[in-house]
Amino acid sequence: MTVSVKEAANYLSSQSDILILTHVRPDGDTIGCAAALCHGLRFLGKTAYVLPNPQTTPLYACYVEKLLAPAEYHPSCVVSVDMAAPSLFPENALPYLERVDLAIDHHPSQTFFAARTCLDASRAACGELLYDLLCEMGAITPEAAAPLYVAISTDCGCFAYNNTTPNTHRIVASLMELGIPTAALNKRHFKTKSFTRLKLEKLLIDSIELHENGIIGIISISQDMMDSIGATEQDADDMSAFIGQVEGVLIGATIRELQPGICKLSLRTDPTVLNASKTCALLGGGGHAAAAGATMEGSMEHAKDLLLSAIHQTRHETAQ
Amino acid sequence: MTVSVKEAANYLSSQSDILILTHVRPDGDTIGCAAALCHGLRFLGKTAYVLPNPQTTPLYACYVEKLLAPAEYHPSCVVSVDMAAPSLFPENALPYLERVDLAIDHHPSQTFFAARTCLDASRAACGELLYDLLCEMGAITPEAAAPLYVAISTDCGCFAYNNTTPNTHRIVASLMELGIPTAALNKRHFKTKSFTRLKLEKLLIDSIELHENGIIGIISISQDMMDSIGATEQDADDMSAFIGQVEGVLIGATIRELQPGICKLSLRTDPTVLNASKTCALLGGGGHAAAAGATMEGSMEHAKDLLLSAIHQTRHETAQ
Repeated sequence: MTVSVKEAANYLSSQSDILILTHVRPDGDTIGCAAALCHGLRFLGKTAYVLPNPQTTPLYACYVEKLLAPAEYHPSCVVSVDMAAPSLFPENALPYLERVDLAIDHHPSQTFFAARTCLDASRAACGELLYDLLCEMGAITPEAAAPLYVAISTDCGCFAYNNTTPNTHRIVASLMELGIPTAALNKRHFKTKSFTRLKLEKLLIDSIELHENGIIGIISISQDMMDSIGATEQDADDMSAFIGQVEGVLIGATIRELQPGICKLSLRTDPTVLNASKTCALLGGGGHAAAAGATMEGSMEHAKDLLLSAIHQTRHETAQ
Repeated sequence: MTVSVKEAANYLSSQSDILILTHVRPDGDTIGCAAALCHGLRFLGKTAYVLPNPQTTPLYACYVEKLLAPAEYHPSCVVSVDMAAPSLFPENALPYLERVDLAIDHHPSQTFFAARTCLDASRAACGELLYDLLCEMGAITPEAAAPLYVAISTDCGCFAYNNTTPNTHRIVASLMELGIPTAALNKRHFKTKSFTRLKLEKLLIDSIELHENGIIGIISISQDMMDSIGATEQDADDMSAFIGQVEGVLIGATIRELQPGICKLSLRTDPTVLNASKTCALLGGGGHAAAAGATMEGSMEHAKDLLLSAIHQTRHETAQ
C-alpha cells in the first residue's frame, strides 16, 4: 500500500530495530538519505543501521562509515531509500527483498515491491522526502542535515538541473540553518575532479568533431584511450554529457568503443532540433526524445558515418 | 548618507526619470540588477533606462538590450547597482560620477560616492538587495525575476560558492514561483563553454605539474599557447581556479607568461596548509591568505623554481 509522509513517520515511530537499504551503484541521494534516516532514528533512541553496500565509493563512504550494520544484525524493520525496483538491490540486500516494510522513493518507475511505499515523484531527490519525514518525526538534527544536503544537492546538480524546484531551495535553506559545512561539501562534490578524469577530458576535447556549423558535436573514445590513462568507470561518469556543454552544439553524440568492433552510442539532443529516440531507433537502439542510445557493430569511424546518416534521415523526415 | 531598503524604495517611488549605471567589465550581478530594476520601475509607470555599457559581453547583453538609454536621455535621477567605487565607472558613465542619487551595493569595499547608499555586505549578490527593494515597491514581476535569478545565481556560482546563504535559497525559491526559464538560464550560464575555452582547458591539463605527492599543483601557460588556439581574455576567465579542482591539490598555482620575460603568478591555497599572501610577499606580491599573486621577471621555468622555493620557505617558517 502507499502511505503518506505522516503515515510513514507514524509507522517508523512505532519501530525499534531498523535496517536501511541503499541501491546498487550508490549515489549521493541513496547514501545521504540512509545516513540521515539512521541519524534521525538514533536521535529518537532507536537502534538503526545502514546495510553495508559493497559498491560504495570513497566519495560517499564517509557519510555512513559509522552507521554500518554488523554482520549478525537481525532487524525487526527494513526500510529502503531511493530504490525504485528489485533490480536495484545489491546482492547482499537480496535476502531482504521480500520483507521490505517501507520503501521511501521519488522515482516514477517505482514498482511497489515493499509492504508500504511512500512515493513522491515530483521531488528532485529522495532527500526532500526524507527531510519532510524527519521533520514529521521531530528528528531533524545537524547530523542528519549534512547528508540530506548531499542527497539533495547531488541529485539536482547543485541546483542547476531542471528537477530543482522552489521547494528544493526552501528545504536547503532550512537545512543550512541547522549548520552544514556547505563550503567543504560543495568543494568535495561539485568542484573536485581526479587527475585521471582531467586527462580523460583532455582526450575527449581532442576527439571533438563539429559538423554542420557546430550544431552537431561528436566525441569518440576507444578502450585503448581509456586504458592509456588508467581511466576507470568512475572517471568516465556522465561522459555522454560532456559534448553538450560546447557552445552551439544542439546535437551531441558520444561514441565509445567497448571492445574492438562494438561501439556504444549516446545521443543527447535539443528535441526541437532532433528527436534522439527516432535517430537511435534507425540504429537499432532507443530512448527518449532528448537522450537516447544504441549499441553498434563495426569501427568507431563506421559508427560515426552511420550516425551522421541517421541524423540526416531523421531531420529530413521530420522536415517533411 | 546610508539608507535602508525601505528608504531606498520610498526614494525611488518619488522619482520619475531614472538612469541605471552598471560597472566596468559587467558581470551577471550588475547587469541582472540593472535589468530587474528597470523592469520594476517601468512596471510602476516610470521612465527608466540602463546606460549602455560598452564592455557588455553577448552572454549578458540580452538582458538589457531592450532597456538601453537613447543618446540624448536626460534623467532626473541616477542609480548605480553593484558598483563599489568611482574606479568602477565605465568611461561613458563618468559624467554621472558626481551626481549618483542612489547606490545599491553589496561590496564591503563600498566608498560611499553617492548621495544615498543602500549597502548590505552580507548579501551573496546585489541581486538579493534588489529583490527586497522591488518587493518593497510592489514591483517584482516575472520580467524582473529572470534577470534577478541571473544576478544572484552567477554571483554565487549556482549556489556552490561560500557566500550562498539560506536567504539566497529562499529568495530564489520565490523568484522561481514567478516563472523563470531556469533550465535555459542554467544551461547558458553554468553548463556552456566555448570550443576555444575547452581547447584552453586541454592546454591547462597538459601543463599540470604535481609536486609533494600531489599537494602542490602548478599550471603554466604562455601567450604563444593562448595565441595558438586564438584564446581571448574571456576564454581565460577564472583560469587561476582551474588547478584547484584537482583532487588532492591544496596549493594551486597558475603561472601565466604575459610577455617574454614577465610572468603573472596566481596562488590559491588552503590557508591552513599555506598562507598564500606570505608566499607571494616573498616574490614581491601580495593578497589574501587563500588567494594571492605576484608579477615575476624571467622565464616561466624560473618563476616555477622561485615559487617552489618560496612555498618551501613559507612552510618552513610557519612550522617553526
